[in-house]
Amino acid sequence: MTIQELDTPAVIIDLDVVERNIKRLAEYCREHGLQLRPHTKTHKNAGIALQQMAAGACGITVAKTGEAEVMAAAGVHDILIAYPIVTPAKAERVARLARDSKIRVSLDSDLAAECLSAAAAAAGAEIGILVEIDVGFGRCGVGSPADSVALARRIGSMPGLRFDGLMFYPGHIRKPVNEQGPMIEEVNRVLRSHYEGFASAGIKISTVSGGSTPTAFRSHEFEGVTEIRPGMYAFLDRNMLSIGAGDTADCAVAVLVTVVSNAVTGRAMVDGGSKTFSSDGALQPLAGYGLVLEEPAAQLIGFSEEHGHLDVSRCARAPQVGERLRIIPNHVCATVNLHDSVWGHRGGRVERELTVDARGRLR
Amino acid sequence: MTIQELDTPAVIIDLDVVERNIKRLAEYCREHGLQLRPHTKTHKNAGIALQQMAAGACGITVAKTGEAEVMAAAGVHDILIAYPIVTPAKAERVARLARDSKIRVSLDSDLAAECLSAAAAAAGAEIGILVEIDVGFGRCGVGSPADSVALARRIGSMPGLRFDGLMFYPGHIRKPVNEQGPMIEEVNRVLRSHYEGFASAGIKISTVSGGSTPTAFRSHEFEGVTEIRPGMYAFLDRNMLSIGAGDTADCAVAVLVTVVSNAVTGRAMVDGGSKTFSSDGALQPLAGYGLVLEEPAAQLIGFSEEHGHLDVSRCARAPQVGERLRIIPNHVCATVNLHDSVWGHRGGRVERELTVDARGRLR
Repeated sequence: MTIQELDTPAVIIDLDVVERNIKRLAEYCREHGLQLRPHTKTHKNAGIALQQMAAGACGITVAKTGEAEVMAAAGVHDILIAYPIVTPAKAERVARLARDSKIRVSLDSDLAAECLSAAAAAAGAEIGILVEIDVGFGRCGVGSPADSVALARRIGSMPGLRFDGLMFYPGHIRKPVNEQGPMIEEVNRVLRSHYEGFASAGIKISTVSGGSTPTAFRSHEFEGVTEIRPGMYAFLDRNMLSIGAGDTADCAVAVLVTVVSNAVTGRAMVDGGSKTFSSDGALQPLAGYGLVLEEPAAQLIGFSEEHGHLDVSRCARAPQVGERLRIIPNHVCATVNLHDSVWGHRGGRVERELTVDARGRLR
Repeated sequence: MTIQELDTPAVIIDLDVVERNIKRLAEYCREHGLQLRPHTKTHKNAGIALQQMAAGACGITVAKTGEAEVMAAAGVHDILIAYPIVTPAKAERVARLARDSKIRVSLDSDLAAECLSAAAAAAGAEIGILVEIDVGFGRCGVGSPADSVALARRIGSMPGLRFDGLMFYPGHIRKPVNEQGPMIEEVNRVLRSHYEGFASAGIKISTVSGGSTPTAFRSHEFEGVTEIRPGMYAFLDRNMLSIGAGDTADCAVAVLVTVVSNAVTGRAMVDGGSKTFSSDGALQPLAGYGLVLEEPAAQLIGFSEEHGHLDVSRCARAPQVGERLRIIPNHVCATVNLHDSVWGHRGGRVERELTVDARGRLR
């Protein structure tokens, strides 16, 4: 079967490109002595997670307890839950996982630590903890070295927990790759202040977990980082292409759609809208919602839930009803998350259906 | 069990409010001699669809063939697929449904009509067709009476098809309910021109299908409309409240979240982000992504995939880690679509889990 025989809308993934992307970053990490712990939020597929492990990843990253359960059941036994666990219901499930797998959790509050400690102690398990620090994104993470050291000390005294180090997410660095230098320097200034705090306190930091796809190939410039957690690098998307994280040929994902109406002058409607692509916007200065591979002059200007609104007024030849198009979505993680499965192909020949195994595991 | 015992994030639906909303619009429609054909895209739940039927709906509306299959299997046998079918694979499935259920499809192209005709004829089924006309939204729909009449004539001559009338969607009317008058007048001007075209051609129109939630209780002002297809009216959401489609007490939906971090000054992060709420924006002049019921001074200013970013700098008392909040989402259809199930409650007491049966049926 070829992708031309798939009914639409359908997410298609070029497996050759995925393999190349996985291999390229694994080699970069080996070269720079970095551990690679891919975030599986992008694909949520156990098979690709195992492929990343086989290519040299030390483990994986997830955001949700339910995602960790799916991945552990599939045979991935070194998992960082890069998300604060603050409810006893989740902490008990994390502790259960920690009996058979190496589980780490990042957090920034006493409550999260106490919650995990109680569950781990009750389950006779040990959970590794990374203290999250804020390096400028302003989302989670303690701000001062005094706070990170104090939290690490408290964690060290709690039963069932093991202080393993620091975690940060440079989510504010979304500039073009070649313009990130000053922001990386600013992150390093924050990192150094925490390292000095821990050195003064005599507390060893074995792991510093950082990384993102925009900064992936500059990870060695972050001081003291031991592991990175990029997710999108395996697939890439329109936003990542726009900041120079790869070329169109490095992007593994597209949404296959069909034109269902062109009755309105200057418009063509395709059968994928916000429930197929997500409403995630473009990184400035980009506008619109996707890159139409067959008709780059067609602008995906908006979505209804099930309609993609193409402005085709600048096309030499407007797409006709029934025509199929491939569109690279703005944000691959959000797009894949809307589908129960995606189609893996090589050069247009469909090889296998990939279930989005951890989709819907929101808790 | 109460909603306070549910782990988060979780979508909660007040079943008393749903019943009231369903009953109120059903009564309005009876009073005005309008058929009600609710769009099930909002809840995608077979039980609520059957509840809408029991309250007097003549049938339901769906966007996708797969949604129609789910609803027909659950016992709903009068379905409008308000979406052009242009692929043979889908047309065959629609024709199969049409053997046991009353199935209508709206369309605006010859290709869609030919595709359905071929499938219906092969299956020995008959499919009712509504010709979609554009009344100002600029999405789908033929523009001129000459075009709608010509398409209806061609449909009338195609085997397996039955021309049933016209369909339109006033999706551009999103103003406050009490300011919609001039836009409704403009729609009526377009409707009249088509009615005159069909009258001159001697073609009978048995159905004119219109309606939306923003215009729901003004549906009787649209000339010649015989049925309406609102979806959100059963639940409502922040955007619908903002245009006066109801009060907070009329909104059945909220997302229950837990504060997972407040380490960054002026911020509180909750455990629902774009993968829990969707990234759908607010209708102007509203900003932000949700209404925090317990802390209206807290502004939901942005999303990561799994974090809701609350600006709590204007709160008298900032929400603490572990605290639970209920947040009304901007766009309920997009939110519900991200969940495998939602929780039905009455006054906070959980009554049942409602599966989002037609979620993921994108084809």
